[in-house]
Amino acid sequence: MSDRKEFRDLAEPAEAHEAIASLDLEPEPETVELAEARGRILAERVDADLDVPGFDRASMDGYALRASDTFGADEADPAILELVGEVHAGSEPDVFVGEGECAEISTGAVLPDGADAVVMVEKTAEAGSEGEAIEIRTSVAPGNSVMPAGADIAAGQRALGPGTELTSREIGLLSALGRDEIEVRGQPTVGIVSTGDELVRPGEELHSDAGQIYDVNSYTIAAGVEEAGGEAKLYPHAGDDMAVMEEALTTAAEECDLVLSSGSTSASAVDVVYRVIEERGELLLHGVSVKPGKPMLVGRLEESAYVGLPGYPVSALTIFRTFVAPAIRRAAGVPEPRTATVEGTLAAEERYTEGRTRMMPVGLVENEAGETLVYPVDKGSGATTSLVEADGVVEVDADTEYLAAGETVTVTLFSPSVRTPAVLAFGEDDPAFSRLLDRLPSSRFLAVGSREGLRRLRDGLPDAAVVAGPVRREVESVGLGSWEREWGLIVPDGNPEGVDGFGSLADADLRFVNLDTATGLRASADAELDRLAAARDTDAAALQDAIDGYEFTLKAHESPARRVLDGKADAGLGLRATAEKLGLGFVPVDTQTVRVRANPERVEKQGVQDLKAALAGIDELFADLPGFSDS
Amino acid sequence: MSDRKEFRDLAEPAEAHEAIASLDLEPEPETVELAEARGRILAERVDADLDVPGFDRASMDGYALRASDTFGADEADPAILELVGEVHAGSEPDVFVGEGECAEISTGAVLPDGADAVVMVEKTAEAGSEGEAIEIRTSVAPGNSVMPAGADIAAGQRALGPGTELTSREIGLLSALGRDEIEVRGQPTVGIVSTGDELVRPGEELHSDAGQIYDVNSYTIAAGVEEAGGEAKLYPHAGDDMAVMEEALTTAAEECDLVLSSGSTSASAVDVVYRVIEERGELLLHGVSVKPGKPMLVGRLEESAYVGLPGYPVSALTIFRTFVAPAIRRAAGVPEPRTATVEGTLAAEERYTEGRTRMMPVGLVENEAGETLVYPVDKGSGATTSLVEADGVVEVDADTEYLAAGETVTVTLFSPSVRTPAVLAFGEDDPAFSRLLDRLPSSRFLAVGSREGLRRLRDGLPDAAVVAGPVRREVESVGLGSWEREWGLIVPDGNPEGVDGFGSLADADLRFVNLDTATGLRASADAELDRLAAARDTDAAALQDAIDGYEFTLKAHESPARRVLDGKADAGLGLRATAEKLGLGFVPVDTQTVRVRANPERVEKQGVQDLKAALAGIDELFADLPGFSDS
Repeated sequence: MSDRKEFRDLAEPAEAHEAIASLDLEPEPETVELAEARGRILAERVDADLDVPGFDRASMDGYALRASDTFGADEADPAILELVGEVHAGSEPDVFVGEGECAEISTGAVLPDGADAVVMVEKTAEAGSEGEAIEIRTSVAPGNSVMPAGADIAAGQRALGPGTELTSREIGLLSALGRDEIEVRGQPTVGIVSTGDELVRPGEELHSDAGQIYDVNSYTIAAGVEEAGGEAKLYPHAGDDMAVMEEALTTAAEECDLVLSSGSTSASAVDVVYRVIEERGELLLHGVSVKPGKPMLVGRLEESAYVGLPGYPVSALTIFRTFVAPAIRRAAGVPEPRTATVEGTLAAEERYTEGRTRMMPVGLVENEAGETLVYPVDKGSGATTSLVEADGVVEVDADTEYLAAGETVTVTLFSPSVRTPAVLAFGEDDPAFSRLLDRLPSSRFLAVGSREGLRRLRDGLPDAAVVAGPVRREVESVGLGSWEREWGLIVPDGNPEGVDGFGSLADADLRFVNLDTATGLRASADAELDRLAAARDTDAAALQDAIDGYEFTLKAHESPARRVLDGKADAGLGLRATAEKLGLGFVPVDTQTVRVRANPERVEKQGVQDLKAALAGIDELFADLPGFSDS
Repeated sequence: MSDRKEFRDLAEPAEAHEAIASLDLEPEPETVELAEARGRILAERVDADLDVPGFDRASMDGYALRASDTFGADEADPAILELVGEVHAGSEPDVFVGEGECAEISTGAVLPDGADAVVMVEKTAEAGSEGEAIEIRTSVAPGNSVMPAGADIAAGQRALGPGTELTSREIGLLSALGRDEIEVRGQPTVGIVSTGDELVRPGEELHSDAGQIYDVNSYTIAAGVEEAGGEAKLYPHAGDDMAVMEEALTTAAEECDLVLSSGSTSASAVDVVYRVIEERGELLLHGVSVKPGKPMLVGRLEESAYVGLPGYPVSALTIFRTFVAPAIRRAAGVPEPRTATVEGTLAAEERYTEGRTRMMPVGLVENEAGETLVYPVDKGSGATTSLVEADGVVEVDADTEYLAAGETVTVTLFSPSVRTPAVLAFGEDDPAFSRLLDRLPSSRFLAVGSREGLRRLRDGLPDAAVVAGPVRREVESVGLGSWEREWGLIVPDGNPEGVDGFGSLADADLRFVNLDTATGLRASADAELDRLAAARDTDAAALQDAIDGYEFTLKAHESPARRVLDGKADAGLGLRATAEKLGLGFVPVDTQTVRVRANPERVEKQGVQDLKAALAGIDELFADLPGFSDS
């Protein structure tokens, strides 16, 4: 292995920020049409080059006149003025208003010469048989109901400054000034080069047996670049072919303000990056003392800035968000997002002693007192689900080895639009409950299994737990709803081995696939084995030993069935609903009850009430879930 | 005038919300490529249809082996295993690891059959002369440094629910699942029909004499539609041609989910809208009891929803934001923005007795105690500048006639990204100061004139005031900076009338244009006239009367010069810098001092400190401002 890969001299986060700040990624300003300008940042200062409005403008329907002719007029003693013409919006007045005269005028029309005020129509009446005179029943001052030329903004005045974000409101002002094109800050072009033989672009065929995985970083980082105000450009996937990789890097450097590479975990690929940077640029920094994300490169490549991101998705996105996104925002002139942080209370103690600054992904939940509880969501830096199960990040200093439960921490939300879930549930991954969640869009459910769900409920973290099958240790809780589901052994279609229960698995040489002990299905299976052992006058452990694969467990409830489907097992633990969905055979064993149990302190919480109301209609979801029924 | 235009039965705001909610603007879902999916809302529920990772994956560089072979091994007593092959990421293992054997493995590679754990390379050493054996210096449990198939997410598990907004994080998970296309909520198509003879699209030529103004609403509302998650479609400007207007409305109704019309203030145009709606649709509501924004129509037009917006830009955008944007967000599946409200203290009392719910645009400033002060920004519903000078809206109940200074009000920000300005200044519109503002992007300056700036400073609203010329009543303040500027009479190029000061204006029959009494230039001009009157042994009032146009005042400091430029006046009050900028003649009268004066309580405020620092370099801006100099 290369010495370089050991990252002996890790840079402090501040050094990494400095290294990136020393790079120039700022593109030239560009001119865009007003209709395309929303969300862009003004590069120029905009002064009005005309008066708005461009003329003295009537702001009421009524009569244009000389204010002095109305002095003293009221309902009892109106002034009578001669009607000499009319002026409509959008046309040039062809009338002069002299002393004792008036002209009909509509809102938005040009105040005719001679007139200095408008009286609204409601304060007037026609007079004279031919309507040739008008009664004015109020007195007005010069300028009444007139918006003078330039009153909104006058020629020569500063309208907007450079750095202004163009929202609908600024677009309104620019429209009023007649601007149909506008100079805005350029969006830095960010080239994304993903490397690694094992990566396949989404949509293409995947060969898992050959260790292939989908390329997560390319589209994820591209979306992150756009969120930060840059323009992302994906380069063809470079694999681990050194020539292709070098070509992709140098082409991207020619075409972009910043090149990001990510993906390859192979030492030889890293070596190519090192060589290309050293031959055609400069390496400023490699390795930063942050977890996740240690392997980060910063440098220059040709005329472009270069950052190498770690390969693991969570690491790559963390490094991107922490170090690269702020630089892209600066280059694009986009202000740092309004501080989207929340204070919360750590729900459980957290220990960590690796001596690197830790960017700890966390989820949020509101407790009964309206306080925010914070819990780590750390499924490893290879887990893309932790990206969507977390709400933000707590930065933990390198020298903080211990955070106590109840400690106050500051969470930087992933974006200001992140919301604390309305209801948080942990527990058994049940297909009916999973469908119910579609009706509760701001809910969050973590499929940790019944046992773990109950444990977390006891610790006071989630609002509710979903628990299936027998329970060893009771937890104080309030039932929100329950239903029954049929479980058993899932076998190939037609049940070719004639499996008729756990007994036949113990007696024949059949490969079985079990579920994790945290699941309620496993709890029921264990209970069934206890019953069977008693009936056979043996002990359950001996029976388990006799079943080939009883200790081979998977976590997800459909996974054993899929092993059977793939011909990798003869039988698997699962639900009738799963067997029928996958077109497999099913040997029923029993039914079990699934209960949704609320934290008793949080029953009044709106999200819990909404969950309870939704659960009242869960039987609507049983139609295509064979084996499911009301409790 | 039509009876309808009087809006005798105004609907309550709640009724207007209901009427719009009764319309269906929801488009069909659509399929987009993952690369284009950022910011869209998931229409479907997404279940994993494969395990991620798809195989048991090494999470370290090292050796794949059977954990049982390492039991008891440590630094002092390593286990020695036979090296039987190697496995790289992205390739299918061609080796079986038996008892007493190991295989070199790289991060991300498939765990070979037979092996159940990985030992990291740092805990191993080569043994044997040919490297055919490996020392294992630690003991590991089965599964160590292995990410099992499906550990991130397993086939059959729910990945994302409908209604989820797709950010970089969700795009990461969808990438991992191999999805390159995704079904998202459709964006409602919103047709915008602007009417009114007087409206000209930005970029086209404007005839102000004919009462033309630029069409503000079309692009502004289009931007608002996009901010709310809709897709805006502008229809050709319909003018007041009834046939064209009807055609535009019916075409838009055929092509769009929602038609918005706006613009015309003419009764006949409103009548066309009424007729078209009544013939081809249904009118549900006209007129809503909100200020600004009374004239609002809600109905159906063919199969489309229809809302008629008021013509004035502030009214149109207020009605749009209050009633229409939430309906577009609902139809697009976009969640309501995280409540972007701030509590603030009203800076001055506010009276209002019109009996309609008032949507009062307000600006914000932070006082010395860090509290938010709130002040109305109300230049009339025709003023587009009030769109950008306000930060949000305070909703005042129809029956609230009085709000006291110091009262706490809730401000709904225009968007969550709105920030309170770092520094707020009121006062004289000075070209050097105006350029300085370009260096302070988060500042706000309102050009209300020196006198008004001082008055507001005395009332404790702004952080600073910009004051030019003589001051009648002193205000306690702290000087932040000052400079001199030369002022006088701006005349046509070459000074054809031989103007040599105010005296010649009084003596000859020349048309003069003055500035508003709130400006510092006017204060200096008045003082000059006092001096001249004393010299001539007359009184200033007589001298003012003798100058034709002394009472004809404009607000913006360049405006008198522009009247001269247009041939509408022989002389105007102004600065040498303005005369030279516009290529006009200049008759110097005097210099005056411009002072930036801070609220003494807020000198420590960061924005004020930044302003002071910037002012120290204001002389850098004098190069192309003739007549400007250091104090």
